Amino acid sequence: MNKGIIMPDSAVLSLAKDLISRESVTPEDAGCQQMMIEYLEALGFECETMVFDDTTNLWARRGTAKPLFCFAGHTDVVPTGPLADWHTPPFEPTVIDGFLHGRGAADMKGSIAAFMVAVKQFVEQHDDHQGSIAFLITSDEEGPFINGTVKVVEVLEARNEKIDYCIVGEPSSTREVGDIVKNGRRGSLTGDLVIKGIQGHIAYPHLVDNPIHKAGPVIAELSQKVWDNGNEFFPPTSFQISNIQSGTGASNIVPGALTAQFNFRYSTECTAADLVARTHNVLDSQGLDYELNWTYNGVPFITGEGELIDAVKTAIKEVTKFDAELSTSGGTSDGRFIAPTGAQLVELGPINATIHKVNECVKIADLEKLVDMYRLTLTKLLSRDPV
Amino acid sequence: MNKGIIMPDSAVLSLAKDLISRESVTPEDAGCQQMMIEYLEALGFECETMVFDDTTNLWARRGTAKPLFCFAGHTDVVPTGPLADWHTPPFEPTVIDGFLHGRGAADMKGSIAAFMVAVKQFVEQHDDHQGSIAFLITSDEEGPFINGTVKVVEVLEARNEKIDYCIVGEPSSTREVGDIVKNGRRGSLTGDLVIKGIQGHIAYPHLVDNPIHKAGPVIAELSQKVWDNGNEFFPPTSFQISNIQSGTGASNIVPGALTAQFNFRYSTECTAADLVARTHNVLDSQGLDYELNWTYNGVPFITGEGELIDAVKTAIKEVTKFDAELSTSGGTSDGRFIAPTGAQLVELGPINATIHKVNECVKIADLEKLVDMYRLTLTKLLSRDPV
Ligand SMILES: [Zn+2]
Ligand SMILES: [Zn+2]
Repeated sequence: MNKGIIMPDSAVLSLAKDLISRESVTPEDAGCQQMMIEYLEALGFECETMVFDDTTNLWARRGTAKPLFCFAGHTDVVPTGPLADWHTPPFEPTVIDGFLHGRGAADMKGSIAAFMVAVKQFVEQHDDHQGSIAFLITSDEEGPFINGTVKVVEVLEARNEKIDYCIVGEPSSTREVGDIVKNGRRGSLTGDLVIKGIQGHIAYPHLVDNPIHKAGPVIAELSQKVWDNGNEFFPPTSFQISNIQSGTGASNIVPGALTAQFNFRYSTECTAADLVARTHNVLDSQGLDYELNWTYNGVPFITGEGELIDAVKTAIKEVTKFDAELSTSGGTSDGRFIAPTGAQLVELGPINATIHKVNECVKIADLEKLVDMYRLTLTKLLSRDPV
Repeated sequence: MNKGIIMPDSAVLSLAKDLISRESVTPEDAGCQQMMIEYLEALGFECETMVFDDTTNLWARRGTAKPLFCFAGHTDVVPTGPLADWHTPPFEPTVIDGFLHGRGAADMKGSIAAFMVAVKQFVEQHDDHQGSIAFLITSDEEGPFINGTVKVVEVLEARNEKIDYCIVGEPSSTREVGDIVKNGRRGSLTGDLVIKGIQGHIAYPHLVDNPIHKAGPVIAELSQKVWDNGNEFFPPTSFQISNIQSGTGASNIVPGALTAQFNFRYSTECTAADLVARTHNVLDSQGLDYELNWTYNGVPFITGEGELIDAVKTAIKEVTKFDAELSTSGGTSDGRFIAPTGAQLVELGPINATIHKVNECVKIADLEKLVDMYRLTLTKLLSRDPV
């Protein structure tokens, strides 16, 4: 029995709990953004809700001057997975041994709570800050990302509202909060391939044209090809086949077609157009009858040394005493939609060990550190008396 | 309105109709063999029903002397397929324009009816024939062929009952009845392969080991290999992959394993052991982590020139005026279980154009010709005064 004094939750813990308790499984927002609006309006933000189809997005801005600093993130979460495997109910935020448990704790309701508290602290100290501060929040980052950030960015571009600096709150950290800052992402390009042949009975091999046999040399050539050697920011472009299927299920029938899906994660040494052309060259040189449909998931982007990275690295060092490492590894994020507008953009958030898993959690002390990192970054970039 | 005289059905048509009207979808016999038993006992056959699990088999023999001539076949039929596509009910034998329609008409209830009439005509003329006549009839030829011919052959071998000559009634003909006699079949050997890799997220290519990529060179090598060049009886051994599957369905996950199924149709220039060893050599030389399970579907067999082929070809020529062609093409048949006992064995039956399809049918005149071909063959081999 704990007979000690019950401490009230800190500001960031209280906000994170509020967000987690809303069941915002993608593309639901479940009132998260309405709560943010009330909080941000009290701090002098003008808030715009942009609904596209099933997705609710928030664009909130304080001030009209340049430069524009933006916190970007998402209120939606991935599904819980098997409830029986959770030690605590996923939508009942629960503190155990200094960790806050619940779906979205690390990806990324904790970051959003930290954004909010950092901004409150900053504007309370620097009401007359330079430039502007914005929030770009979506509820479809975990879904098909069709009606979220990409659409908000289109609206901003149409009215010439340009983001200069952006921190995305994705869980970038691995062992200690702030150890990794993502300053770019590889591009992602997916191909859906159908190789055609002629179906028939296996006992009459002269009457069939086996598409599985045709696929062999294609797989061999594409998977062994060196697409580029990467560069100082990116590892070499990688090609991976994720799915392949052919066959009727019967052991005595040669099928008439083979389907395969593959994906490039590509560096800034390649363009999507390069990769498309080079893939077609391989297929055409083997004389295949095929169909190939491409999905452009995102172009590579990189933020090199500059004011944003300086500010973020300095902020992290002040909080943690160590130097953050820059990285472009991992999957895609909504940063791919914002960076191409010319914004300097990094991703900085909590440790990603439990994201998208059961028993997702975040260390409460890490949320407090993120508040400090975010606030110090703002201070360095927007205060009239940089610390 | 046909006001002419209604002719009674011929003996072979009447028996074929009786068999078709019994719904003997594999492995059901549906009373076909009981009807045969009554017919054959009246001709002096001793009939033995051998039930193995779900399968009813008939071994009927007239006489005890050597040589033993056997008619082999099956009473089961493949399923009807979509009933709506049939012009006549599949189990209501119907004559249209000289063709008998119904499931099993060509494969192979027509042949069985022709066997029965041929034997009746023969023993009525040659009651004191040389040697013995037998029927080996199963009801699982269209199924998994586990409890049919293979088990009956085991019983016969155990009691030293040896078949010298065998005609299997499979529909061997292509354009005209008797144009093709199958005097052998290729072997069939199936492999079920699992290639193992390491599953992971497509964004971390250094942590995965893609089994689809490993499969590419394997498919290329196995499908391009020349396994043998065939011989006077057989085309070259062929290798075909019938099924391949890998992938979780997600576009961003590299799967942990790939499964593939392949099949050899092989000549007497190879053995199954050769093919197994050479396949493992390819897989091992590529350093794969794999599992491979083999299914031995049947060894190749061949009946060269000899008394049976002489008799059958002469009989066909007497009926049709042309020379039958010998062939080993096409799928497997139950002949693969009988031939290895040392029997001379051929397959001779109606035109195979409609077998296993909707609206299966056989020309009634062809059944009459088959009666003559079978009877003349018997006469040449077993009568005391060869014609
Ligand atoms: Zn996220
Ligand atoms: Zn058959």
